[in-house]
Amino acid sequence: MAQASQEKELVAPVSLLATLKAIDAGTITPAQSIEACLERLAIAEQTIHAFVSINGHAKAEAEQAQGPLAGIALAVKDIIETQKLATEYNSPIYRSHEPARDAALVTMAKKAGSSVIGKSATTEFAFLDPCTTRNPHNPDHTPGGSSSGSAAAVAAGMAHLAFGTQTGGSIIRPAAYCGVTGYKPSYGLLPKVGIKDFSWTLDTAGLFAAKVADCAFAASAITRRKLTINPEADFRLPRLGIIRCRIWQDADPDYVARFDDLISSLKRFGTEVIELEPSEHFLTAFNAHQIIQDFEAAQSLAWEYANHADQLSPLLRHTLDFAQTITPSDYDEARICAMAARREMSEQFEDVDALLSLSAPGPAPKGLTTTGSPIFNRIWTLLRTPCLNVTGLETADGLPLGVQVIGPQGGDPATLQIAHWLEGAIARHVKG
Amino acid sequence: MAQASQEKELVAPVSLLATLKAIDAGTITPAQSIEACLERLAIAEQTIHAFVSINGHAKAEAEQAQGPLAGIALAVKDIIETQKLATEYNSPIYRSHEPARDAALVTMAKKAGSSVIGKSATTEFAFLDPCTTRNPHNPDHTPGGSSSGSAAAVAAGMAHLAFGTQTGGSIIRPAAYCGVTGYKPSYGLLPKVGIKDFSWTLDTAGLFAAKVADCAFAASAITRRKLTINPEADFRLPRLGIIRCRIWQDADPDYVARFDDLISSLKRFGTEVIELEPSEHFLTAFNAHQIIQDFEAAQSLAWEYANHADQLSPLLRHTLDFAQTITPSDYDEARICAMAARREMSEQFEDVDALLSLSAPGPAPKGLTTTGSPIFNRIWTLLRTPCLNVTGLETADGLPLGVQVIGPQGGDPATLQIAHWLEGAIARHVKG
Repeated sequence: MAQASQEKELVAPVSLLATLKAIDAGTITPAQSIEACLERLAIAEQTIHAFVSINGHAKAEAEQAQGPLAGIALAVKDIIETQKLATEYNSPIYRSHEPARDAALVTMAKKAGSSVIGKSATTEFAFLDPCTTRNPHNPDHTPGGSSSGSAAAVAAGMAHLAFGTQTGGSIIRPAAYCGVTGYKPSYGLLPKVGIKDFSWTLDTAGLFAAKVADCAFAASAITRRKLTINPEADFRLPRLGIIRCRIWQDADPDYVARFDDLISSLKRFGTEVIELEPSEHFLTAFNAHQIIQDFEAAQSLAWEYANHADQLSPLLRHTLDFAQTITPSDYDEARICAMAARREMSEQFEDVDALLSLSAPGPAPKGLTTTGSPIFNRIWTLLRTPCLNVTGLETADGLPLGVQVIGPQGGDPATLQIAHWLEGAIARHVKG
Repeated sequence: MAQASQEKELVAPVSLLATLKAIDAGTITPAQSIEACLERLAIAEQTIHAFVSINGHAKAEAEQAQGPLAGIALAVKDIIETQKLATEYNSPIYRSHEPARDAALVTMAKKAGSSVIGKSATTEFAFLDPCTTRNPHNPDHTPGGSSSGSAAAVAAGMAHLAFGTQTGGSIIRPAAYCGVTGYKPSYGLLPKVGIKDFSWTLDTAGLFAAKVADCAFAASAITRRKLTINPEADFRLPRLGIIRCRIWQDADPDYVARFDDLISSLKRFGTEVIELEPSEHFLTAFNAHQIIQDFEAAQSLAWEYANHADQLSPLLRHTLDFAQTITPSDYDEARICAMAARREMSEQFEDVDALLSLSAPGPAPKGLTTTGSPIFNRIWTLLRTPCLNVTGLETADGLPLGVQVIGPQGGDPATLQIAHWLEGAIARHVKG
C-alpha cells in the first residue's frame, strides 16, 4: 500500500490557466513557473521517463518570454523538429540528429511565450513500437502512444502543455490512459511543417493539457483563433449522439457500464442523447484508414526503408514490407471511401452537436510491450473531426477512463465548449 | 544573326523514351547516357546556369543503376531534400544546408534507376524572387519560375527528367517559357515528404521532360501507377472545353490568335471544342488562392521569419509581413470557397474530357528581374487538377508558346493521353 500511495503521487497535472492566473496575480514569475516544472520533473522523471532530452536554457528563456503563454512549460513530442534539441524520432537512424530549424508549431508556441522544456518520448516514428515511458497512474501500465511522453509529462505535472500527433489514436488514447485532456483539432488546424510525416492524409497535430479550457486557451494563443472557453457565454445543452458500431463489442464491459451510467445521468439532467446508425461508408472506412496509412507510410519512410531497413523495428519493417504490396488503385479506392464517409458524417452532424464515444477499448493495459489499441480513434482521424479526451471517470483501481467528444470537421470552438461542459458534468456525476 | 543561331543551339531537349530505347538496343550504356548529359551540361551551363550543384558521382552511380529509369539523368529542384547534395532553397539562411535524408520522391526515383545529376536552381523558397537561370531559347529572357533550373535543364538537354513543384504556376509556366513538357499531376499523386513547404494546401510536385510520353513514363516508373501512353490504345477524339474568364483580356493578343488558330484547326478535323462559363466560385477562387497561399506561407516560414527576416528577399518579407494580417476566418472562408469551386469543376468535367487554356499570359518576358505571371495557373493548382504544358506553338521570334491541358482531379491517365494526342495535333497544325 505504501508503494501504491507513492505511485499515486506521481499524478499531479497542473492547470495552464491556473498557472497563468498566478503569474498575472504576481504570485509567481514565468521563470519560477518553469522552475517548478523542472523541479517536479527531477523527481517524477526517475520513474516516468517521459523525456528524451531536457532544454537546459528553459528557465533563462522564460525570463525573456513575452506573450499569453509566458511561464508555460511545453513538452514537444520528439517527431517534431527543434533546432537546438536533437530530434531522433525514437530511431537509431537519427541518433543525435539536429534539424536546421524549429517546426512551425514550435516557432508559433515560442512566439506566444511558452518555454520548450524538453523533447517528450515517442514510439519509433510515431508508429507502434513502444518507448520506455510509464503511466503516472501506475508505472506498471503503458501510458499509451505514440505521444507517450507528452501525455505522461502533463499527467505528472512536468509540463503544463505538450504537443503530440495522431495518425491512428496517438493523442486521444494516451490522454485517456494518463487521465489528461487530449485535443486532436480538425485536420490542419495546427500546421505540420517540420513534423515527420507518417501518413500525410491522416497525421494531425494536437495538444495535451490538464483540462479542456487549458487546451482551448493554448490553441487560441498559438493559432490566433477564437477557441477559448467563455464561461459567461450562453450555453444551451448540446444534442449528443452515440454510434455503437461493432468495435464496442470488444470494449471493456466495466468501462462501457460506467460510460452508460454517465449517459443515463446526462439524460436525467435533460441532455438529449440519441443512438445513431453507422453511415454507409463508416465501417469500410476503418479498412480505408489502414490502407491509406500504410500506403503513405511506405512513401514517407521510403528513404529509411531503402537505406536503413536493418535499423527499423521488426513491427515497422514488416508493416512497410506489406505496404509495398498495396496498389495505387487500392489506395485511390480507400481515399474515395474516406471522402464519402466524410460527406456522410457531415450530414449526421445536422442532427447532433457532438458525438460521444469511449476514448479507448479499456483503461491502460498492464505492461510496456504495447501502447494499446487505436481502434476507437482511427475513424475520427480519417474523418478529420475535432476530438477531445475528457477526464473524470476511472476504474475501481483508480486508472483513468476517458470519454471522447467528437465534433463536426471545422467545428472546433463549439466542440471545445461541449467538452468543457461535459468535464463539469462528469465531475458532478462522479461526485453523485 | 550569328549570335541568334548560337543561342538556338542551346535548345536541345533529349527524349527520355528515346534514350531508354537506345539503352535497350545496346547503342549506349546507362553510364554513357549520363555522361552525354554531363558533357552537354559542361557547355550549356556556361550560359544557362540551371544548376546550383552537380553530383560528381552521377556517372559511377549509373553504372550500378537498375530499374526502368536506369540511364536517365534527373535534375532535382533545390527545395527538395537530398542527403548528399546541399539543399539551400536559394536562401542564404540555408547556405550549405545538408538534410539528413533524401525526399521520398528522390528515393523513389533512385529506386526506379534514375541518376540525380544535380540540384536545379529555384527562386527563393520557390516564391517569386528570381534566380540567375536563363532561358535556352533566348538567354536574355527569363526561363520562368519557380522551377527555373528544372525547365531550363530539360530544354537544354542537360537532364532527361527534372522535378519541380507548383504552388501558383511554378511548373506549367517555366515549361511553357522553355518549350518543354511540364506535368503537374493531381494534388498528392507525387509525395511531398522532404520538400520544403510553402503552402501545403497548394504545393504540388511534378515533372519536366521533353515530351508528354516521357513525363507519363517517368511518372509511372516512379509511382507504379498506370500512366504510360499506349499508342496502340483505342482513342476517340476528346470533348474539349475552354473557360475564357477575365484574365484572358490581359493575355498577349498574338498568343491568343495562335491558340485560336489551333482551336479552329482542331475543330476542322472533327474535335468538339465548347466554350464554358466560369462556375459560381471560379472567379472568387482566384482570390482564395492568394489568401490560402499567404496564410499558410506565414506558418511554413514561421521559423525563418521569426529568426532570419533580414535574410529574406524584400519581396518575400513584405508578403510575410502582409500575411500576418490575414485572419483565420479569412483563411477558413477561402478554403470553403476552394472546396465549392472544386465541386463545381468536377461537375463541369461531366461535359468535357479536358479543358484547354494558355499556359501563361504570353511568351517568356525579356529580362531576369521577374519570372513572369502565374495568373493562368493558380486556379488549377487550387482546384488540384492534373495540368500539362504541351509544346509546339511559338512566336514569330521563335519563343515557345504553351498550350495547357487540364483534366479532372484524379483523371491523370486520360489527361496524359489527351495531352499526348494534342502534342501530335499541334505538330500537324504547325506543319500546316
